[in-house]
Amino acid sequence: MHIQIVGLAGLPEVRRGDDLAGLIRKAADGPLGETIVVVAQKVVSKSEGAVVDLNSIEPSSFAVEWGARWNRDARLIELILRQSRRIVRMERGLIIAETHHGFVTANAGVDQSNVESNVPGGNCATILPRDPDQSARRLREALACGAVIITDTFGRPWREGLVNVAIGVAGLEPLEDYRGRLDRSGRALQSTVIALADELAAAAGLVMRKQDGVPAALVTGFEWKLADGSAAPLIRAPEKDLFR
Amino acid sequence: MHIQIVGLAGLPEVRRGDDLAGLIRKAADGPLGETIVVVAQKVVSKSEGAVVDLNSIEPSSFAVEWGARWNRDARLIELILRQSRRIVRMERGLIIAETHHGFVTANAGVDQSNVESNVPGGNCATILPRDPDQSARRLREALACGAVIITDTFGRPWREGLVNVAIGVAGLEPLEDYRGRLDRSGRALQSTVIALADELAAAAGLVMRKQDGVPAALVTGFEWKLADGSAAPLIRAPEKDLFR
Repeated sequence: MHIQIVGLAGLPEVRRGDDLAGLIRKAADGPLGETIVVVAQKVVSKSEGAVVDLNSIEPSSFAVEWGARWNRDARLIELILRQSRRIVRMERGLIIAETHHGFVTANAGVDQSNVESNVPGGNCATILPRDPDQSARRLREALACGAVIITDTFGRPWREGLVNVAIGVAGLEPLEDYRGRLDRSGRALQSTVIALADELAAAAGLVMRKQDGVPAALVTGFEWKLADGSAAPLIRAPEKDLFR
Repeated sequence: MHIQIVGLAGLPEVRRGDDLAGLIRKAADGPLGETIVVVAQKVVSKSEGAVVDLNSIEPSSFAVEWGARWNRDARLIELILRQSRRIVRMERGLIIAETHHGFVTANAGVDQSNVESNVPGGNCATILPRDPDQSARRLREALACGAVIITDTFGRPWREGLVNVAIGVAGLEPLEDYRGRLDRSGRALQSTVIALADELAAAAGLVMRKQDGVPAALVTGFEWKLADGSAAPLIRAPEKDLFR
């Protein structure tokens, strides 16, 4: 297998209502065929209008108090709480939350970097797309490509640094299950389910860097079995999660 | 940036004392120059003799009791405990442990798949290399390549599926720090430290599949700043770890 990963530069600043697929097609400049198109959450959120002006938010007294204690903007704290269905940790000024989709991430995916405000004096943040799988399906259809993965950079326990992971998937199964297959010695492989979509997201992350303005990448040469796909299987069920 | 990832097939079964760098050079069939060579822990462990015959292990009464309760081989449990400096979770038959290196992973990295026994009736498991950074440095020198990353597949909390991660690094900084740089709107990027070595490991994982016998991959076209490197910065310090 010989995989190629190319960053898609040259996309203009994306705004609510923009035809993101059209902008990607134009930047890709050629038929996408069996290409896996990896797109950063940020531009998907912008094109879908998943952008909130903090000036429009009335923080709760809890958000005001906690924000004052840790020197963080109470309106931002309020927005993070609204994006969360469960707080995993909230201490030392940091919030790790489970989003309404079920993703566990810092600030519930709320992000202020690379967001231009629509109005002068505005102070905007992006939130995650409401249904990233649906966003991926729509993009895949409009792009006529092999698969689409929508990604965000997440931290993880125990290890330093963020990695790009899949939050929306269309066109491939996010997990590949080797259980029951035999290793080369004839022994059944144990607990070997590989998070393909996350490895693809991480690979694309190598060329998608925030300050470079590369919000998408094209992956070719990877062999996979076409499927409807969804990021949902990547979310560990509570009863299987040793860390709840 | 245009990255290529190629799996290195055609390596013979690796045994203790084998010249792993020589086998990789032969399979690569050409000068490695600025290539990043990604190598699975399994073949590094085998070549270094980090293979233990379970028949040689006398399990403690704790390992015997816990193994019986969860239907697991007490000698394997004992080996896992010996590879651990801290048990993170040990329940429902599963062990998540912190290795002596500081990596948190299932079974402290002990693995029975794809291990041939040296003796008839043997029942062997690999353990992680004693010093994966040193293994990486030696390989890098012998290969005369840009960088070496030694990898293993780790599970993670909250998300299903394993991903390939870096446990030994030579030739690059494993983390890239964007903090303090400005985003495209002139706002300072917050908490954006990217685990480059893990993204490279995951990318290589796409072509390194256990049952395919592809224990190494070559990554070319990735631009990075040469450095001595080490996997140690990827380990989150206890005082910064919200999940202890």
